Amino acid sequence: MQVQLYDTTLRDGAQMEGISLSVEDKLKIARKLDELGVHFIEGGWPGSNPKDAEFFARAQSLQFQHAQLAAFGSTRRAGGSAETDANLRALLDSGTPVITIVGKANDVHVRDVLETTPEENLAMIADSVRFLKSHGRVVFFDAEHYFDGYFSDRDYALQCLKAAAAAGADCIALCDTNGGTILSRLVEAVRAAREAVSVPLGIHAHNDTNLAVANTLAAVEEGVVQVQGCVNGYGERCGNADLLSVIANLKLKMGLDVVTEEQLARLTEISHYVSEIVNMVPNPFQPYVGASAFAHKAGLHADGVVKKESSYQHVPPEVVGNHTELLISELGGSRGLLEQIREAGIEVELSRNDARHLLEVVKEQERRGYQYESAEASFELLVRRSLPGYRAPFELEDFWVVQRRATRPEDHGREMQTEAMVKVRVGDEVIQTAADGNGPVNALDAAVRKALISFYPTLALVKLVDYKVRIIDSAAGTGAGVRVLIESTDGDQLWRTVGASTDIIEASWLALNDALEYWLLKRAPERRERA
Amino acid sequence: MQVQLYDTTLRDGAQMEGISLSVEDKLKIARKLDELGVHFIEGGWPGSNPKDAEFFARAQSLQFQHAQLAAFGSTRRAGGSAETDANLRALLDSGTPVITIVGKANDVHVRDVLETTPEENLAMIADSVRFLKSHGRVVFFDAEHYFDGYFSDRDYALQCLKAAAAAGADCIALCDTNGGTILSRLVEAVRAAREAVSVPLGIHAHNDTNLAVANTLAAVEEGVVQVQGCVNGYGERCGNADLLSVIANLKLKMGLDVVTEEQLARLTEISHYVSEIVNMVPNPFQPYVGASAFAHKAGLHADGVVKKESSYQHVPPEVVGNHTELLISELGGSRGLLEQIREAGIEVELSRNDARHLLEVVKEQERRGYQYESAEASFELLVRRSLPGYRAPFELEDFWVVQRRATRPEDHGREMQTEAMVKVRVGDEVIQTAADGNGPVNALDAAVRKALISFYPTLALVKLVDYKVRIIDSAAGTGAGVRVLIESTDGDQLWRTVGASTDIIEASWLALNDALEYWLLKRAPERRERA
Repeated sequence: MQVQLYDTTLRDGAQMEGISLSVEDKLKIARKLDELGVHFIEGGWPGSNPKDAEFFARAQSLQFQHAQLAAFGSTRRAGGSAETDANLRALLDSGTPVITIVGKANDVHVRDVLETTPEENLAMIADSVRFLKSHGRVVFFDAEHYFDGYFSDRDYALQCLKAAAAAGADCIALCDTNGGTILSRLVEAVRAAREAVSVPLGIHAHNDTNLAVANTLAAVEEGVVQVQGCVNGYGERCGNADLLSVIANLKLKMGLDVVTEEQLARLTEISHYVSEIVNMVPNPFQPYVGASAFAHKAGLHADGVVKKESSYQHVPPEVVGNHTELLISELGGSRGLLEQIREAGIEVELSRNDARHLLEVVKEQERRGYQYESAEASFELLVRRSLPGYRAPFELEDFWVVQRRATRPEDHGREMQTEAMVKVRVGDEVIQTAADGNGPVNALDAAVRKALISFYPTLALVKLVDYKVRIIDSAAGTGAGVRVLIESTDGDQLWRTVGASTDIIEASWLALNDALEYWLLKRAPERRERA
Repeated sequence: MQVQLYDTTLRDGAQMEGISLSVEDKLKIARKLDELGVHFIEGGWPGSNPKDAEFFARAQSLQFQHAQLAAFGSTRRAGGSAETDANLRALLDSGTPVITIVGKANDVHVRDVLETTPEENLAMIADSVRFLKSHGRVVFFDAEHYFDGYFSDRDYALQCLKAAAAAGADCIALCDTNGGTILSRLVEAVRAAREAVSVPLGIHAHNDTNLAVANTLAAVEEGVVQVQGCVNGYGERCGNADLLSVIANLKLKMGLDVVTEEQLARLTEISHYVSEIVNMVPNPFQPYVGASAFAHKAGLHADGVVKKESSYQHVPPEVVGNHTELLISELGGSRGLLEQIREAGIEVELSRNDARHLLEVVKEQERRGYQYESAEASFELLVRRSLPGYRAPFELEDFWVVQRRATRPEDHGREMQTEAMVKVRVGDEVIQTAADGNGPVNALDAAVRKALISFYPTLALVKLVDYKVRIIDSAAGTGAGVRVLIESTDGDQLWRTVGASTDIIEASWLALNDALEYWLLKRAPERRERA
């Protein structure tokens, strides 16, 4: 039987600290997961959450190419009956082809958390599975705390699996709910489960011991055929198994065709897309898909990479949609810089002299606190500006920002007034204007756009999607230098810019200036007419 | 033979994108690693980097309790002699009891990167080890690319190990340099190495397949006795094996006493300390030591944790110096809130009515964009302010901030002027004053401190150590709400505060206000006199 991917980003992943998903967010992510080639998408817990019930109602109109939707819930209540159980009813009402129910497979939890008898727990499992099966659904059983249960009372844990199997479960997922099981013990408990039941098994691993991906792969090597996980390893506490690492390892390292090559090549894009939707900062060091996953800084390594692509890369980054990055700051020589420009896809002709000059500029900017590692648009502007004959599409000549807050206890001191006055030059014209804003950067942004809009009407398309501030020398307190990173979009593509200053407003402005300038140079429909 | 910990944070860890360590930073980290009970600390590469040579010179005065210092370098140059090799000379000059040399164990790399013959590479390994041994040092050999080498040319890879062993190496570390080896292959290659040589073996794993910790533990189960890794999993690309996860797993899951219980209980502290020094944002989801590693959000789980500590925690968090956290935002009821206050160690008496009122306040603040999950000082202030009779040590009544930038191409538009005017109330007195600053927050901070310093002289001790900005609703562009998180210290303890507003200056000010107010209430020596 082929290994199948079961994604629980929308349910278990949403349990991560800092994540809160709207129905719209969930629908967007579900569409992407289908494109990735995931076989099952667990959409939520309709019995516990009205938002999830709404998701399932709206999800019925999604046209999936690959995936089947699963609704999640628990077994019937202790002492009740499956037929009258509100939670099981909500699962049926969700209308999904697949229903996953979770039940305890651990004697201690049955007694202390569920507060019922071992026999009643077995009946709860069997009744619930049988009831859902009788309604014609595919039913997966999540054996919660199976591994701890196995090492606490081996016989009882296996009885729970047998109860689910006998009642007709289509797959039983062995859950390392607390994420505390190390590999050798996990393998022992998986083998015992394989011997106890003949139904297909799944694995649901958490990362509390930093072993979630390894445990998942080991279970597959032991014959498990369903792997559960979350995009980017989201999930409660330390997260679930990172489904993206699992997919790449299964496909590239174990030769299992869980997705096609085309789907695998979208891994990086999908990682970023989901992190955007859930509003979590992407982890640059994430295996396969992180921005630094194929970045080379050390002189030795970078040199090796130039000499032989595969020498310091375990796979070609393109197969997962990522790319090699040679970090300029450490390459030193102008040869490295030229390589960096080529890698970044910047189409310019630089002489040796130009390159040497540019290298000086880069070093000077880094001394000021700039870092171009994650601001490719500002880097390209830096390169272009260093060339003779560069003409900026606009220049901010002067600005004033005035802010006043009058604190009054009755309105929580929220009466804040901000105004920006700007002088902007476009070619030979100078436009002087002013605007209010929600804050100083917003006021500046508004005033500059107001000045530019008659020259560049499509600028209205450009939106800021992320804004990060990093203190450069934290020991200097509020007087420290700051680096601002801005991510912008025109609804189609994303680009990132950077600004550095001891003043957060100036740093923000410099990054924003680059964001607008980059768009006008590279993407705006007007650029051809004005070039 | 007991398993020994070999830390390479100062060498391989420093290769991570975004990390740059001064000699002083390295000395601080080395001291902490010794306290943690690490057996070997790799300090750097004296032959390639003058800063590292300085580190070893200054490190001679460090008085380690446990650790031995190791210097790192490569084998002699192809075609040269060990006796005249500048790199080997620099290693001897470093004066460390241990020297680690890296050499190739992969035929492809010997040919394509080193550009020499397989025989010469074997001679380079043997000569270098023998030469360093003849000077009375402990010598470890890092077999670079051993795993890829083993699967490329098994015999040659093993010959490299045998050359190092025959020349007297005290330990041979098998390096998965590209981090691309999955578990089953790694185990096969470790077994072959164990059969080929009788010298003790080490493991050096990278995380490119999300398996570094698992690979390290598997190697130990195969008889490897030296584990190499970095604090917090720092290192090039996706990082090295996280030495903290490795330590906790070896001690708690495999029963190997690599550190004492007291040392293990400092794991979380040391993780944060090192992330502070290297200026990397701590990963809240990091196994064992992350701020969210024992945080519970789901209603089901949080309820389980209240009922039975161990039900959703694989180990008691205290054993690694961490603690359980129940996230207020999702607990819902006032019972959960009271539990949260108790967990946070806030000593207040709250009636049921007080708690219900407070819950309303929390919800209202969350609606405004506040998140208290990582701002315990602001949460405590919120609790205290909600109680009748609370008197703030000061209040900022009004402020004005004026900023002007006149852009002149010749000075890169850097002429920025910022001034803040404030009215501050302390008891019945109102102080009106003004100050310049590097930026608006700095100017405000300076003006408020100027107003307060005569009342609270010790406020001068309080410094801001980290400052983060997060856009709450990124779709709103520069007009979006922002949340500012500030971390402050008095040189002894750290506390974190939060402010939210659509205006970054106001949000910053609110967080800064909390930082100062918290210190005056809880820590300032003056507080008793004024209580």
